[in-house]
Amino acid sequence: MKLVFQKADLLKSVNIVMKAVPSRTTMPILECILIDASAGVIKFTSNDMELGIETIVSGMIIEKGIIAIDAKILSEIVRRLPDADVTISTDANYVASITCGKAKFSIPGKSGEDFAYLPLIEKNECLTLSQFTLKELIRQTIFSIAANENNQLMTGELFEIRDNILKVVSLDGHRIAIRKIELSGTYSDRKVVVPGKTLNEISKILQGDMDKQVSVFFSDNHVIFEFDDTVVVSRLIEGEYFRVDQMLSSDYETKVTVNKKEFLECIDRSTLLVKEGDKKPIIIEINDTMMELQINSAIGSMKEDIDISKSGKDILIGFNPKFLIDALKVIDDEEITIYLVNSKAPCFIKDEKESYIYLILPVNINVSR
Amino acid sequence: MKLVFQKADLLKSVNIVMKAVPSRTTMPILECILIDASAGVIKFTSNDMELGIETIVSGMIIEKGIIAIDAKILSEIVRRLPDADVTISTDANYVASITCGKAKFSIPGKSGEDFAYLPLIEKNECLTLSQFTLKELIRQTIFSIAANENNQLMTGELFEIRDNILKVVSLDGHRIAIRKIELSGTYSDRKVVVPGKTLNEISKILQGDMDKQVSVFFSDNHVIFEFDDTVVVSRLIEGEYFRVDQMLSSDYETKVTVNKKEFLECIDRSTLLVKEGDKKPIIIEINDTMMELQINSAIGSMKEDIDISKSGKDILIGFNPKFLIDALKVIDDEEITIYLVNSKAPCFIKDEKESYIYLILPVNINVSR
Repeated sequence: MKLVFQKADLLKSVNIVMKAVPSRTTMPILECILIDASAGVIKFTSNDMELGIETIVSGMIIEKGIIAIDAKILSEIVRRLPDADVTISTDANYVASITCGKAKFSIPGKSGEDFAYLPLIEKNECLTLSQFTLKELIRQTIFSIAANENNQLMTGELFEIRDNILKVVSLDGHRIAIRKIELSGTYSDRKVVVPGKTLNEISKILQGDMDKQVSVFFSDNHVIFEFDDTVVVSRLIEGEYFRVDQMLSSDYETKVTVNKKEFLECIDRSTLLVKEGDKKPIIIEINDTMMELQINSAIGSMKEDIDISKSGKDILIGFNPKFLIDALKVIDDEEITIYLVNSKAPCFIKDEKESYIYLILPVNINVSR
Repeated sequence: MKLVFQKADLLKSVNIVMKAVPSRTTMPILECILIDASAGVIKFTSNDMELGIETIVSGMIIEKGIIAIDAKILSEIVRRLPDADVTISTDANYVASITCGKAKFSIPGKSGEDFAYLPLIEKNECLTLSQFTLKELIRQTIFSIAANENNQLMTGELFEIRDNILKVVSLDGHRIAIRKIELSGTYSDRKVVVPGKTLNEISKILQGDMDKQVSVFFSDNHVIFEFDDTVVVSRLIEGEYFRVDQMLSSDYETKVTVNKKEFLECIDRSTLLVKEGDKKPIIIEINDTMMELQINSAIGSMKEDIDISKSGKDILIGFNPKFLIDALKVIDDEEITIYLVNSKAPCFIKDEKESYIYLILPVNINVSR
């Protein structure tokens, strides 16, 4: 095999497929990138058995062939090559030579015979989104998936299409994040749970252009994302997702409108008095025109007032400040509205159209203080 | 005590004195910044008993006083305050209130009675340098001090004034870095060893302006740096520094001139084949017009030619690539000249005026390969 690339093309493609190279595996072949130039195109593939990525690479095929090369070494070499044409060639013993300018690297490769190719999946109805929209949907919800795998469904996100609306939901038992967008086009109803890891990696690869599209296909067990010259295939998480609608409610006793930036900066300041792992709540006291935020910890105390406009009852309630920060960070509105019932019931941060809903459970506070 | 600062002034000064706050100490008072507004100015002091920093802070004294406040907490609070006036006030129980806009922090402070003030040192002859020059001198030599303290003198740098030339020397047993500058003015001869830690911290505080000065004073046991509104006092390392002149030699068998950037990038590429802690040398073979660099490791091999101009014998020699990289990174010349004797003797990278000399010991290589 002998291939010639421009360094920038090679680097871009290696970076894309790196996202599905497992850091630890019992199958050493999966630590490789498969370079397949046996047909008319050059294709790079990686696969950690949950997530697989294939990308077509711009380059010249001087001699056809296939080889699997250790992904980490290939990536480090390519990164440090000078900005010139890069030649990758192999000999009969699967030793790969990477030459660029006067530099020549030799590294042992593998035949690629035992490489795990991506599953072949029948593509049916295709959901089309802009790269920007998909990337935003992920960013605005991914933080509230659960980190540990006690409940596998919580480590993924629900993607639900109903009545041509796409709803993305994540929850971890303490909070729920929901984003909705109207789809242009007609789609059949559909419900799948996509692994959080897949969404994280996809979001890193997507350039996030408004005018570039992603095509999404769902099968019973897989989801496929196609964009630019890249295909990402991921397993879905099996099982029935939580009935989120039952947890939502439109009743409230207190409704507060506040400047988002001011609210976020204030909570952010308060957290410096809380040591990692220490679960000090931020205490929020809502009066007619003012919200008083307060935190007391072993380090010291902090108090700050924020102007609000409010309707309904006064209330005293405590929250994990991190949960508020996570939600506020991904809301683009200048003013946000918070709906509260009582000090034991979840609060909702949502807009009028409910294009976003962030539900956060309160923390028990000693009201006497 | 009651003081009012602009946030930017306060933040700048806190950042400066933070550099001498010890991360671990048996004297908790040293984890504090001493805020002294007992006289007509506001002065912040920190001291880890090796290194002490005092800086005058712009601010308004509404009520005089002294307090010691935990440095880390103060620094984190100040960093996150909004961009407005900050008031620091204390009550009779040494509780400090920090208010800014509507935010109010309360944190416990200390009287500062048992704070270790900086030693009073008689200032005699003053060495004046631009901030830029001092910062550069440190950057260009600090990497070759020894990290471990087996030999304390190796953890510092020699500052030697002789015949109105300032020479800065560092060495770690495998290499030597020397920088010389001519001083404008007349100075008495002098030799001191300044702790590497002090130089590292000074270099972070110095803004590095060409047109701002640093005044340096030496006593028998201390060095003082004065610049802007800041005074840094450090102990010196005691003992007789190594006789570096005996290790230098102007004899050579091979003299090579090479493009610095090309040489550096090539060595940098080669190091990716060397795992951390693995001591693979880079093998350099010098012929009449070409230098061949080669590295062989468990990961793979790399070979690259670089054009050179050479006089003297051909030579095959091995080096720790990191030592070459460290020296090349801080040389600003486009072309560098390397002087070699044989494969067991140190090489010298130096300019004609010897304003810099980098000596690097070779590594034993199996010449048969």
